[in-house]
Amino acid sequence: MQQGKRRYRRAGSARLRPMPEPDAIAGALSALLPPDRIAFSPGERARRARTTSPHGTTPAGVVWPVSTEEVSAVVAACGGAGVPVYPVSRGKNWGYGDACAPVDGCVLMDLSRMDAIESIDAELGYAVIQPGVSQGQLAAAAAERAPGYWIDCTGAGPEASLVGNVMDRGFGHTPYADHLATSSIMEAVLADGKILRPGFHRYPGAKAAPVYPYGVGPYIDGLLTQSNLAIATKVCVWLCPKPEAFRFFYIKVEDESRLEALIDALRPLRLQGILNSAVHVGNILRVVSGQRTYPRDLAGGKRPLDAAALERLRAETGLGAWSCSGSLTGTRAQVRAGAQALRRAVQGIGRVIVLSDAQIALADAITERAARFGLLRGLRKTIQDLTPHIDLLRGTPTYHPLRGALWGLDTDDDTPRDPVEAGAGLLWLSPVLPLRGADARAVERIAAPLLAQHGFDFLATFTLLNARSMVGIINIAFDTADTEAAARAGACYHELMRALIGAGYPPYRVSIEGMPLLREPGTEYDAFLGRIKAAVDPCGIIAPGRYIAPQSGDAG
Amino acid sequence: MQQGKRRYRRAGSARLRPMPEPDAIAGALSALLPPDRIAFSPGERARRARTTSPHGTTPAGVVWPVSTEEVSAVVAACGGAGVPVYPVSRGKNWGYGDACAPVDGCVLMDLSRMDAIESIDAELGYAVIQPGVSQGQLAAAAAERAPGYWIDCTGAGPEASLVGNVMDRGFGHTPYADHLATSSIMEAVLADGKILRPGFHRYPGAKAAPVYPYGVGPYIDGLLTQSNLAIATKVCVWLCPKPEAFRFFYIKVEDESRLEALIDALRPLRLQGILNSAVHVGNILRVVSGQRTYPRDLAGGKRPLDAAALERLRAETGLGAWSCSGSLTGTRAQVRAGAQALRRAVQGIGRVIVLSDAQIALADAITERAARFGLLRGLRKTIQDLTPHIDLLRGTPTYHPLRGALWGLDTDDDTPRDPVEAGAGLLWLSPVLPLRGADARAVERIAAPLLAQHGFDFLATFTLLNARSMVGIINIAFDTADTEAAARAGACYHELMRALIGAGYPPYRVSIEGMPLLREPGTEYDAFLGRIKAAVDPCGIIAPGRYIAPQSGDAG
Repeated sequence: MQQGKRRYRRAGSARLRPMPEPDAIAGALSALLPPDRIAFSPGERARRARTTSPHGTTPAGVVWPVSTEEVSAVVAACGGAGVPVYPVSRGKNWGYGDACAPVDGCVLMDLSRMDAIESIDAELGYAVIQPGVSQGQLAAAAAERAPGYWIDCTGAGPEASLVGNVMDRGFGHTPYADHLATSSIMEAVLADGKILRPGFHRYPGAKAAPVYPYGVGPYIDGLLTQSNLAIATKVCVWLCPKPEAFRFFYIKVEDESRLEALIDALRPLRLQGILNSAVHVGNILRVVSGQRTYPRDLAGGKRPLDAAALERLRAETGLGAWSCSGSLTGTRAQVRAGAQALRRAVQGIGRVIVLSDAQIALADAITERAARFGLLRGLRKTIQDLTPHIDLLRGTPTYHPLRGALWGLDTDDDTPRDPVEAGAGLLWLSPVLPLRGADARAVERIAAPLLAQHGFDFLATFTLLNARSMVGIINIAFDTADTEAAARAGACYHELMRALIGAGYPPYRVSIEGMPLLREPGTEYDAFLGRIKAAVDPCGIIAPGRYIAPQSGDAG
Repeated sequence: MQQGKRRYRRAGSARLRPMPEPDAIAGALSALLPPDRIAFSPGERARRARTTSPHGTTPAGVVWPVSTEEVSAVVAACGGAGVPVYPVSRGKNWGYGDACAPVDGCVLMDLSRMDAIESIDAELGYAVIQPGVSQGQLAAAAAERAPGYWIDCTGAGPEASLVGNVMDRGFGHTPYADHLATSSIMEAVLADGKILRPGFHRYPGAKAAPVYPYGVGPYIDGLLTQSNLAIATKVCVWLCPKPEAFRFFYIKVEDESRLEALIDALRPLRLQGILNSAVHVGNILRVVSGQRTYPRDLAGGKRPLDAAALERLRAETGLGAWSCSGSLTGTRAQVRAGAQALRRAVQGIGRVIVLSDAQIALADAITERAARFGLLRGLRKTIQDLTPHIDLLRGTPTYHPLRGALWGLDTDDDTPRDPVEAGAGLLWLSPVLPLRGADARAVERIAAPLLAQHGFDFLATFTLLNARSMVGIINIAFDTADTEAAARAGACYHELMRALIGAGYPPYRVSIEGMPLLREPGTEYDAFLGRIKAAVDPCGIIAPGRYIAPQSGDAG
């Protein structure tokens, strides 16, 4: 019984549409799930509309299935009622809409209670997990059951899901980085409730299924990511073998104008595999935002920070105009040779510090003691600030990067915490660039003035994604309680996204705000995916509006 | 005007179906192409039915488009007439059906005249090419225009297409190896003649499009490989940066029973990235087949070779029961450390030889002079035999591996040459295994007796595909002129494929013979792809029967 004509309000759209009547579907779902795993109360719905985005969307209600069978049953029931389903793994998609669907009125399927680690293979280095497994949970399990490996975690904190990140095609911080390339979707529920097993998983007992994701015939995992064709319920993620040696490196670039030179110097190192993990090049405000809250004292109550305030901040922190950090991994001889090559490559561009595990631990111990007597307190702070970065590079999830999400708040509480609970507004823009200095500069020249024009600071990093490309990560931070600032953030996001796509820098991933901005009218691309969506989910039951353009018959 | 009810004979099927009437479509295509680029003569059709497979298929005719627009026009015309189209890049898919479609009666679209190298980017290391570009052509162009890079070529010879290999999801021999992961499909023609631009290519002027294949939204390149949804007309292939240092290594394992130990010793080296290119572990017959034709003298006219003949062959050649070869690449320090680690790992399993570029060149020069006087002739032969392997590892395509395809012929002419022209019969079986010694042994225990039972030698290699999996490459070689042997080869292929899938080792790629053997009745996988095929190619115009199971409405 499809209700294809019903239409809901979209995130980022001013058009208000009638909200759905949740009663009918709530009744159907109550027959499938116990009362403690279904919530359609106005309070729960309002709670779930909170987001770091300027415009939240309100679900029809929330369900917490605990098995693939329950996911199937819920999807089938929703399909029967013509009510769309929006799956979230653990809902920590910070800055991209968090746990909110692109449209109102979905049944929010919260998969956080499907948190089984089905197996860990220490010989081949992989873990089979459900979407509710958190980064912290898997890191702890791997430390015990596969101590020779790191998990490739993201900066979204220990509570975030790894499966969710695979399905959004995110990246981690070890040499594995690319989450689609280092995982294999084992099981996914389709709109009719049937279970799809991609790759070799279609053959019961295929021994290489977890370790050769392509299978035979069309490779479909990629089609299921940044998509709305199926709900992944079981994924194999590969674990990154711990290298014999690890070094953290940090490059301080004083001269703002050397950005191009720095990036062009990194490219050959990345192409040759001397650098092989996520390398970040951040501007001063981005680095500061990871260390403290907004410097209200310097700003005189104003946003964005003016040139004088930036100058004072630089003097106070001792930071360079650009900071670059990453790791060198491999054998002892490899990291030694890598450190040499890195120093040679950036000579005259920036100052390089390379730290071994032992040096990091030692500096921490020495400065801890000295700091008790007021000595070396500054150095200790620096090492404390660096440690979470270093941990991420070694596969240890940390709450630390969440501090950066608080930049839009007028607060002195710098505890890294859940941005939604904190009321922090955050929109990520993540344009993809060729790995060339001139492109980094071009993106900066587009973004910085546009942000200033809308009253926002320019916080940015460029992160090397593979040997030939990087992603610019630009954030728009605001206070969600400030409706004027939220509206401005939304307008700025739209304008900047359009400007970046127009200049040849489309994003690798978007917020629920950004979904409609991806469409490129007149190209065959949207039509091709539209035909596929209509074929496998004719009523548009799964996550309408997520990446694939909505179809005319969609429930959402 | 769909002719959905028409049915043709399938490769590997005994059922004879009415052949199509090529006249109508020939007329329509004649209006689109000049006479020298269309051939529907009985002679041309018969020539194109020749293959290394036991059962060739006969096309309706052949067309040679020279542009994407012509590809579109031909596909649209064929769609209008309900005649399927089978695209081949250069038709050198040896052992997997070569240039033959899975079914009779297709218009064979030969893309070999679309051979433009549109651009080579020496800064970011990639080439934009059409399907007709050969490996030899690109290697020569790269040597001139991007001398810091290798192409990642396959063993199919200098005449083979790289785009064809990407679309069949093959692998090369440099550290890049995985052709899907190191390419980006830029342009593909759909069944209605429209042009799809996947990934960021949908955005005109997106600068990172060639270097970030995922784009934003569903990643669809993978869906288009081992598939029949579109015809790729332009692909960006990444070039592999030449490392500072290169070493060739060779491990001789005397004791047949040490296969498991050898593979288990290689796994940690591959996981740690110390080994990072295609490493091959071959049995004695596989190595011999690359060096000479079938040893009729030893066999006493019989196939397969018996135990006594194998023993004599081993004594004559001095080969180990298993030979392992590959490369070490990186900085000088890296390859030095890698060679040490390799020697340590296989100590007590096999004898390791590691050769540098300089040593290879020197040995060649010395032995050439000595060989003139009859000295060191044996050593010179060994180095000559190894050189093509070494060339492949360094991105130089060579005809040499084609010699192995001649094993089924009773000839003394060991010139590596086009297997179809030579009348060589060849079927590859390529099961995927976890990278564990026990799995290699399990595959050997299934394949060797089955091959012997059907009268074929066991020629096999295990090639490391990624850090966790390998592919077994087993060939069935015969003389296509010997109809009894061809029938036996077909039967053996079917039985062995079923046995391998049943034991948990499905193939990474199949021959036209093997397409129907992939179906796994009752799984959602075939239905899912069937819905997609029906949505984007409702009349089944493109390559019916290729990987995706035929649909009821298909033209083929």
